[in-house]
Amino acid sequence: MAQQTVLARIALNAWQIQVDRTTKFINESSDELLLKEIAPGKNRGIYLMGHLIAIHDAMPEILGFGKKAHPELAAIFITAPDKTVDKIPTVSELRAIWPSVHDRLKNEFSNMPADKWFTRHESMTDADFEKDPARNKLSVLVNRTNHLAYHFGQLRLLK
Amino acid sequence: MAQQTVLARIALNAWQIQVDRTTKFINESSDELLLKEIAPGKNRGIYLMGHLIAIHDAMPEILGFGKKAHPELAAIFITAPDKTVDKIPTVSELRAIWPSVHDRLKNEFSNMPADKWFTRHESMTDADFEKDPARNKLSVLVNRTNHLAYHFGQLRLLK
Repeated sequence: MAQQTVLARIALNAWQIQVDRTTKFINESSDELLLKEIAPGKNRGIYLMGHLIAIHDAMPEILGFGKKAHPELAAIFITAPDKTVDKIPTVSELRAIWPSVHDRLKNEFSNMPADKWFTRHESMTDADFEKDPARNKLSVLVNRTNHLAYHFGQLRLLK
Repeated sequence: MAQQTVLARIALNAWQIQVDRTTKFINESSDELLLKEIAPGKNRGIYLMGHLIAIHDAMPEILGFGKKAHPELAAIFITAPDKTVDKIPTVSELRAIWPSVHDRLKNEFSNMPADKWFTRHESMTDADFEKDPARNKLSVLVNRTNHLAYHFGQLRLLK
């Protein structure tokens, strides 16, 4: 197996493990539980769920395979802190969006040739990439995986 | 730059970012804060700190550059849940061990040739590795990074 393929597979395995764990957790949690704060005065489960959706929905743009499907979520779940926006999507609405965002990524990733992971991501210039070739599409995937693990560790406290 | 080197660098950057963030958080936290539970009825900060040390102290064995420096910590911070062991190290004692474990890793990583990351890790057989070459030393680093991010997300709730 080409080393490129091995590398992409390590990063993709790690990503999918985190996505699957978080999906399972959400599917096994009631709406009521997800409306609770993960600790007194901290973010609610619903906010972290929306935050992860909004961040992952932006990945196709950074990785170069299309526009966000839910651009309206960024203002609610990234820019604004929890409990500062009056009207936010319900847990049911987020449950419907969650699999579509992650299935889209899974599908695109499975069609992506390994060498494409080593090209620059869309939010940096060619000149910057020449200076630091480690800032490629794969590094975006690795960073998003750690971001997901960070918030999954928090979500798990609801149980 | 060889692609092997690029990928090892992505993974090492991601690891060091998580280590540095967690170290900064611990250094800025009082002993009193670290003795608190991250959420009611959940693990205390001191337990997560000891847990991360014990897991990271085992990495040299898995990656093939030496024995654990603190083998006694595994029983307290991995096998046993929090608040079940009478006598555990103090926060001060853990503060002294934390940098030694992470500096050792940083030092070993900086001396490690990129291609060595693509060899099998020590807790699997050659036959298994032939079946799945993605289970190499680099995959151990990637998994430990996600594990660290997961618990750092929890530690951050203390603030």
